[in-house]
Amino acid sequence: MDKNIPYKTYLEESEMPKQWYNVRADMKNKPAPLLNPQTLKPMTAEELGVVFCDELVEQELNTTDAYIDIPEEIRDFYKMYRPSPLVRAYCLEKALGTPAKIYYKFEGNNTSGSHKLNSAIAQAYYAKKQGLKGVTTETGAGQWGTALSMACAYFGLDCKVYMVKVSYEQKPFRREVMRTYGASVTPSPSETTNVGRKILAEHPGTSGSLGCAISEAVEVAVGTEGYRYVLGSVLNQVLLHQSVIGLESLAAFEKLGEKPDIIIGCAGGGSNLGGLISPFMGQKLRGEADYRFIAVEPASCPSLTRGKYAYDYCDTGMVCPLAKMYTLGSGFIPSANHAGGLRYHGMSSTLSQLYDDKLMEAVSVEQTKVFEAAQQFARIEGILPAPESSHAIRVAIDEALKCKETGEEKTILFGLTGTGYFDMVAYQKFNDGVMTDYIPTDDDLAKGFAGLPKVD
Amino acid sequence: MDKNIPYKTYLEESEMPKQWYNVRADMKNKPAPLLNPQTLKPMTAEELGVVFCDELVEQELNTTDAYIDIPEEIRDFYKMYRPSPLVRAYCLEKALGTPAKIYYKFEGNNTSGSHKLNSAIAQAYYAKKQGLKGVTTETGAGQWGTALSMACAYFGLDCKVYMVKVSYEQKPFRREVMRTYGASVTPSPSETTNVGRKILAEHPGTSGSLGCAISEAVEVAVGTEGYRYVLGSVLNQVLLHQSVIGLESLAAFEKLGEKPDIIIGCAGGGSNLGGLISPFMGQKLRGEADYRFIAVEPASCPSLTRGKYAYDYCDTGMVCPLAKMYTLGSGFIPSANHAGGLRYHGMSSTLSQLYDDKLMEAVSVEQTKVFEAAQQFARIEGILPAPESSHAIRVAIDEALKCKETGEEKTILFGLTGTGYFDMVAYQKFNDGVMTDYIPTDDDLAKGFAGLPKVD
Repeated sequence: MDKNIPYKTYLEESEMPKQWYNVRADMKNKPAPLLNPQTLKPMTAEELGVVFCDELVEQELNTTDAYIDIPEEIRDFYKMYRPSPLVRAYCLEKALGTPAKIYYKFEGNNTSGSHKLNSAIAQAYYAKKQGLKGVTTETGAGQWGTALSMACAYFGLDCKVYMVKVSYEQKPFRREVMRTYGASVTPSPSETTNVGRKILAEHPGTSGSLGCAISEAVEVAVGTEGYRYVLGSVLNQVLLHQSVIGLESLAAFEKLGEKPDIIIGCAGGGSNLGGLISPFMGQKLRGEADYRFIAVEPASCPSLTRGKYAYDYCDTGMVCPLAKMYTLGSGFIPSANHAGGLRYHGMSSTLSQLYDDKLMEAVSVEQTKVFEAAQQFARIEGILPAPESSHAIRVAIDEALKCKETGEEKTILFGLTGTGYFDMVAYQKFNDGVMTDYIPTDDDLAKGFAGLPKVD
Repeated sequence: MDKNIPYKTYLEESEMPKQWYNVRADMKNKPAPLLNPQTLKPMTAEELGVVFCDELVEQELNTTDAYIDIPEEIRDFYKMYRPSPLVRAYCLEKALGTPAKIYYKFEGNNTSGSHKLNSAIAQAYYAKKQGLKGVTTETGAGQWGTALSMACAYFGLDCKVYMVKVSYEQKPFRREVMRTYGASVTPSPSETTNVGRKILAEHPGTSGSLGCAISEAVEVAVGTEGYRYVLGSVLNQVLLHQSVIGLESLAAFEKLGEKPDIIIGCAGGGSNLGGLISPFMGQKLRGEADYRFIAVEPASCPSLTRGKYAYDYCDTGMVCPLAKMYTLGSGFIPSANHAGGLRYHGMSSTLSQLYDDKLMEAVSVEQTKVFEAAQQFARIEGILPAPESSHAIRVAIDEALKCKETGEEKTILFGLTGTGYFDMVAYQKFNDGVMTDYIPTDDDLAKGFAGLPKVD
């Protein structure tokens, strides 16, 4: 091992970020604004305030301030599980026989099991500050719902979670964690909303989708006094909060006197990737440093690598604003595989713009290859990774093996967003050798694209 | 918050212990030796070497060396998940309104989900060093089996786990974690051993017990070339390895300029409690400092508070050495509740002697009260605790509330041994309000005591 580089680098609490970094301030081409689905005009703060908390709306629309203060109450909460460690993967390097240096920023050491808590606590804080009674949200794989339940328990807010029905049934333990934190969890689609009843009438046996759960949660938030809707990914405000990951990483690298060459993250809606790369991307945008950024998405839901850059609906019920993003179409239904939290049809507008500007690369990987990397990583580095995170592990290992071929001593950083303790059904399939891959055909994709709204 | 005390205190890697502490060296009354069940004479190193690895036998019998070097390979592995944080429970203190200072040493930030990995990696290391092919063990709740699977994967050892049948069936996800790490997992009792076949013939519908699984694992180890048996608790060697918990805690307190008044740990076989208190107990034994130590056990399996201090069998098949310990009798079957890893009929010989010498207190707590504390802790401190660990939380909260009454500013340290992610069936029962308590009657206990062997 490098004598001066420990296995794990923690910042001191006094070194933790006091401001989030807003990458949009340094982007020459700003991400396209959200549009009102009726008027097709940019959403105003007033319109957004019906759905979202006021201060979060401000953050959503803020494309000019590079730094935004993190309130002390949020920083105190962060101290319960942050700073997260920047880990040097010595054992993995040795096992691969690579000259590359591999680092990962590990966000799984909290009960939500992922980075989602970084934004959940911020959103719950602003809801509480606004004097709200509670918030609504949707959850698919369950990390976001768990994180929000924890944040709401901390601030004494009510939390209503619409959980995609197939997950509700297949992941009863995720549901119980949320209930332990006092949240109410409803399988979606449900009879509790107009949109849910409509979908159930049209598709009686449906197992639900994220887009449908979003529609239900938004309907309840808008229709209930003292409630707002919160979302765990895709939005600019979420990437802002998640910048704490990248800021801590950057500070830790500076402490070590190191610098990554390649930064890799899994990408579903973009919350983790956006948060991890933001401050590094800022340096690149300002011409202070250069990095390769790689977004890794599942081959089963390839919004960046095979999607279109267009305005699209964020939800099935089409009640949300339109967002310009790399998308497969809101009607695209990825097959039931284990990409979990990465099975969303679109991608963060900010990341979409950066990708379109060729400031970031993207690759897609197949499920069985992802789980091979997950198992290898678990056995060597001792952490059982979430399926989502394992997409990044796959590409980090591939890049390290390229270095082995070329002899290059590159420094690789990847985001290890969470743990896989609630994903053992997927691991069991892999262990039993019955896991399969799925790659949508061009015809499958064409069906999704056909549903894209016409926006000039 | 105290300005000089952070939420979490981590040692630097360079400050991590390089030696384990062997509390027996400072004990005036040594723990009683293991006896050969045939001859009733103390087990020799040669006899123990049939079952256990040679160097572990040395550690088991060593009552004189206060410090034993931790091999560098083990220290390197420790660096992947240690040092564990010493956490100041500011949020819990505030919620309770107590003048007490509450600290916990959190051992759950690794994939085994508990402190068990501290000894698993040591035992796997010595097995590898001896040139063995593999090891066998039993697991009940699953933490130990998971930890050993991880350790064996790291050193490339085969790992055969006998898992109590009821757990095997109720905790398929624990099983899958072990399989992911390459272990073979067999429900016990099984047809793979003589003792298993005998028990199945006598009790066809049995759901198994820890004592039975131990017998099977020992039989396979003794009967298979290149294999030895390893155990995750009770033994002196395990307490030795677990002393890393207490050594880190002591070093962290010294760094902070603080000192605990009360040290609390849950107690099943004694591995966590013994490890946590060892170096503090050493100070007490040497007259350098004084502490109150409190062992917390489930009311359903009260070996210290209601057991007898006597020689007893460690396993159902009576193939293991006899140990002198506080015990409920090897035939005592605790009701199926959620004390999980605390459902063992006996207690570490070392802790039993310390308790008998009145150097340590013990209390028993009921299950629903334990889960009330668990839920409260989860919501306030953000960590979902294991049911086992929650026994310690219960008593830590009770002691803090006593301080609130008396106004005393005591400093409380408790061991948070692990997380409850694989215990959601128990949490669900609690959330649904259908959890029950169980306290054995004196008659229940008398049946267990009747099976105690006669040893002069």
